[in-house]
Amino acid sequence: MPYVRCVGESWPLTLDRANFEYQALSVQFSLCPKLIPKVHYFSRSDALMIMDYIAPPNIILRKGLIAGIKYPTLSQDLGEFCARTLFGTSALKLSASEMRKECKFWVTNTEMCALTETVVFREPYIDAPNNRWTSPQLDNDKKMIEEDVQLKVAASKLNKKFITQSQALLHADLHTGSVMCSPADGQTFVIDPEFAFYGPMGFDIGAIIANLFLNYVSQRGHNNSPGYDEWILEQVVILWNTFEATFCQLWNDPVEHTGDAYHRSLFTDESSLIACQEAFMREIFVDALGFCGMKMLRRIVGIAHVEDLESIEDPDMRATCERHGLEVAKELIKNASKYENINDAVTMVASKTVNK
Amino acid sequence: MPYVRCVGESWPLTLDRANFEYQALSVQFSLCPKLIPKVHYFSRSDALMIMDYIAPPNIILRKGLIAGIKYPTLSQDLGEFCARTLFGTSALKLSASEMRKECKFWVTNTEMCALTETVVFREPYIDAPNNRWTSPQLDNDKKMIEEDVQLKVAASKLNKKFITQSQALLHADLHTGSVMCSPADGQTFVIDPEFAFYGPMGFDIGAIIANLFLNYVSQRGHNNSPGYDEWILEQVVILWNTFEATFCQLWNDPVEHTGDAYHRSLFTDESSLIACQEAFMREIFVDALGFCGMKMLRRIVGIAHVEDLESIEDPDMRATCERHGLEVAKELIKNASKYENINDAVTMVASKTVNK
Repeated sequence: MPYVRCVGESWPLTLDRANFEYQALSVQFSLCPKLIPKVHYFSRSDALMIMDYIAPPNIILRKGLIAGIKYPTLSQDLGEFCARTLFGTSALKLSASEMRKECKFWVTNTEMCALTETVVFREPYIDAPNNRWTSPQLDNDKKMIEEDVQLKVAASKLNKKFITQSQALLHADLHTGSVMCSPADGQTFVIDPEFAFYGPMGFDIGAIIANLFLNYVSQRGHNNSPGYDEWILEQVVILWNTFEATFCQLWNDPVEHTGDAYHRSLFTDESSLIACQEAFMREIFVDALGFCGMKMLRRIVGIAHVEDLESIEDPDMRATCERHGLEVAKELIKNASKYENINDAVTMVASKTVNK
Repeated sequence: MPYVRCVGESWPLTLDRANFEYQALSVQFSLCPKLIPKVHYFSRSDALMIMDYIAPPNIILRKGLIAGIKYPTLSQDLGEFCARTLFGTSALKLSASEMRKECKFWVTNTEMCALTETVVFREPYIDAPNNRWTSPQLDNDKKMIEEDVQLKVAASKLNKKFITQSQALLHADLHTGSVMCSPADGQTFVIDPEFAFYGPMGFDIGAIIANLFLNYVSQRGHNNSPGYDEWILEQVVILWNTFEATFCQLWNDPVEHTGDAYHRSLFTDESSLIACQEAFMREIFVDALGFCGMKMLRRIVGIAHVEDLESIEDPDMRATCERHGLEVAKELIKNASKYENINDAVTMVASKTVNK
């Protein structure tokens, strides 16, 4: 559609995003074939793509998580998707010159980046007509966001990173609506990378964790089996740990680590390789938590909400869940660097539970 | 010349660097006309440029500093050059979409970036045939660099920033050989931006400070008037302070701060603007010190040295000065974030004096 789907024809959007989606699917398929549907045909002029049919029982992950389904391989698969696609398009794999050549193409996906910059990084923090929230319950929470200078400075710092850091080819819209999976055969597919561009790695990891956290805070509004909320938090830990382990495994392999970043000629022994990886992963981790907070906040007070929370019919219950989400979001945006590891972050999320 | 001048025909180099130089001079002239020679004619096919003649008594700054000349407006001018060109090409001035359009062009200056990546970021830290140093005096110092894992990790982190951070259009070769000036009429001209590309702001500021520090450590090998070394350090302080003040002044002006970074709609009062600027300048400052260290180190043990040190005939004296430079360089690369402000950094440089 030549417009933003959730808004309608009043917000036109380039059809050429189909080309970016096609190009990104091709790159991602080359790096991670088991998690990406194969594209069989693409016509740029028609914005038409023919790809593998992702057959039932595969459904959109968000719907599965709302229904309380447990997916045995999901979090490993998503961690691996992030690791393989981010490593394989970064300056760890590519020479700086090869990477600049890639950037030259992806930097033209400006319209989609501008959309993210508007709806994720700017509007939720100001009084903008597109925003909506559970009202009147969250009126004061929204006002506090607009008045929180520390929050807005931290959010702007992350926005600057989004604009200026070209670390890897991101999916750039990696929420649970961009994943299809089936619990029975342990399949996972990542789809819809029309926002793809070269950006900070933490943005993809933060996005998918944000959507798991959003589902977590919504659980008290749903009637899922006891312990499902804890299962969600466990998936966050597994996802990050898989990402980190797979990323470092690729880095350890001289056939994979062929790029200019942390050039192999500088680091000959294992202990110095580990020192590099620790410095690198720490930065990605802190970025991921910060972006995670921003992706959560915008889904509660911005233009586009998530079904996990929207499907809670009682507005008081919904607002309670959403307030929990906002507290987590603000903490992560402002204080990401205080968290030593993913377990600390998950513990914070569980502890922030807001009383009704 | 279709090769690297200091190496010769064995290291070919694109003639198209003249086009990047021409384009960069045009952008810089539009932002800072008094400090940039005007270009009157450019032929890309001939790699031929006709620009304003920078007449005597203007000379190359490096030669002036070796001769002990004091320039009354130099450090203000260079601080202003950095502030105006970096602010004016950043996402503070431009929308993210406008900036991505610029990046699309500048990201193609790959060959010049690759040259920097090789001779600044990689070779000095390994055993590479291009390296040279005052031998045997500094043999052990060179070996210690190659064995210093903490140093190499920090250097690689800065290299990653150089490859991935597109903050502003850099001059990217801002040493004292790229500046011409005259003490009499207080003129300053910045020339030779053939390495220009979108990179981290701290790289330009770090480069010029590095070359002032290199001159400072060379002073005990020259017979300049007493106190000239202190005058050099004062210039570093003035340069940074002018940069910071001018940059923030531009940012305070709603006619200048029209970009998406730290979007104006988020920050309505003066105190929040100051909070943004403090967060931003802190990052640039730490980056600048780190890059400063790398630019110093490569001029002492890498392929291309500086006349400030090379012109010291006694090799023992030269090595003593160079060792002082290396100590400063390593400290800045490893511990940039420990320095609160430019005065602290300058105090460290003065205190590192190595006994002969």
